Amino acid sequence: MGLGEPIRFMLSYMEKEFEDLRIDSYMEFATKYKPKMPFGKMPVLEIGEDRFFQSIALCRYLGKQAKLGGENLREDLEIDIFIESLSDVRATVWTYFYNRDEENKAKIKPKIMNEIVPMYFSKFDETIRDKGFVANEKLSWADIYFVSILGYFGYMIKEDICKKYENIKDLRDRVHSIPGIKQWVETRPKTSW
Amino acid sequence: MGLGEPIRFMLSYMEKEFEDLRIDSYMEFATKYKPKMPFGKMPVLEIGEDRFFQSIALCRYLGKQAKLGGENLREDLEIDIFIESLSDVRATVWTYFYNRDEENKAKIKPKIMNEIVPMYFSKFDETIRDKGFVANEKLSWADIYFVSILGYFGYMIKEDICKKYENIKDLRDRVHSIPGIKQWVETRPKTSW
Repeated sequence: MGLGEPIRFMLSYMEKEFEDLRIDSYMEFATKYKPKMPFGKMPVLEIGEDRFFQSIALCRYLGKQAKLGGENLREDLEIDIFIESLSDVRATVWTYFYNRDEENKAKIKPKIMNEIVPMYFSKFDETIRDKGFVANEKLSWADIYFVSILGYFGYMIKEDICKKYENIKDLRDRVHSIPGIKQWVETRPKTSW
Repeated sequence: MGLGEPIRFMLSYMEKEFEDLRIDSYMEFATKYKPKMPFGKMPVLEIGEDRFFQSIALCRYLGKQAKLGGENLREDLEIDIFIESLSDVRATVWTYFYNRDEENKAKIKPKIMNEIVPMYFSKFDETIRDKGFVANEKLSWADIYFVSILGYFGYMIKEDICKKYENIKDLRDRVHSIPGIKQWVETRPKTSW
C-alpha cells in the first residue's frame, strides 16, 4: 500500500482505470528503479508520456479534478491545514520507523508513541466527531488521503488506529463504502503495509 | 525567521500590513504559549477573529490571493510537487538538527549532509537554471516560500546554500528585489535563524 495507496484510492474514487505496478523487493527497487526515480523515490504516476510524483500533490490534483477540493480558497486552506498536520505526524512516525539505530529508536519511542501520535490522532478524531469529515463538514480529497494511509500508519506504529478512535473508524467505513473505493479495497492485493 | 518567515514574505509581497509578534525564549513559548497553540506549534496567523496555522497551507492560500498560484490544475501540480520535495528534505534536516541524541546525530550526519541535502539542492538548482523558477517558468508562491526559508535551512546545515548553488542565489536575489519583500528584508529584525 505505502504512499502509492492514496493515488490508487483517488483513481478508484474517480472510477478511472489504472495499471498498478509494484516492485517485489527493496533490493530490486534500490538497484533497478531508484536511480531512475525523481529524488530516488516512489510512487510515481505516469499519465501518457508524463511522469509525476509526490503523493499529496497528486491527490490534490486528482481531488480537484474529481470536484473534491474546496469550493473557495478558505475551504482549500482548511483542507491544506489538515494535510500539513497529518504530514507532520507522518514525518515523525516515518523517521522513527525507518530508524536503524535501535538504541536511539528505543529512546525516542515513548515520546512518539505516548505523546505525539495520540495528540494528533485524538485531535483528528475530535474534528471528525464535530465536522463529520477532516475539514469543511463535507467530503474532500483529504478524507480519502487520510483513510488511504491509515493502514500504513497502523503498520508503523503497530496499532490499529480505528480500534482506538471511533470517529476515525466511522470515517474509514464511510470512505470504504464509496462504490469505486469499495471495489478497490475488496479486490486490491493483500499486503501488510 | 523560522517557519514564520514564509508568511511574512507573502504578506510583504502583497504589501499588506501585519503585526509581527515574536516570543523571546523557548521557555516562554513552552510554558505560556505552547498549550494554547494548535498541535502545540507556531507560527499562527490571526486574521480578525480567526486563527490559522501551517505555514505551507497559509502560503498557498495567500499566494493564490496574490495571483501567484498556477493558472490551471497542471501548473498547481508542478508547484505542489516542488513544495512536497522541499518538505521532504526539510523534514530530514529538521529531525537531524533537533536530534538531542548526539551520538545518533553524529552517526546520521554524513548521509544527510553529503548525500541527501546535496541531492535535493543540486536538483533544485538545476530546475532554476532550466526554468528560471522552481516551477512553471514563472514566479509563484513556491519561489517566495523557498527563498524565505533558505536562511533557516542554512542555519541548520551550517552552510550558506547560496554560496554553493549559483542559480539558487540568483533566484534569491531576484525575489529579494521585489519591492515589498526588499523592504521587509531590509527592515526585519536581525536574527540568526
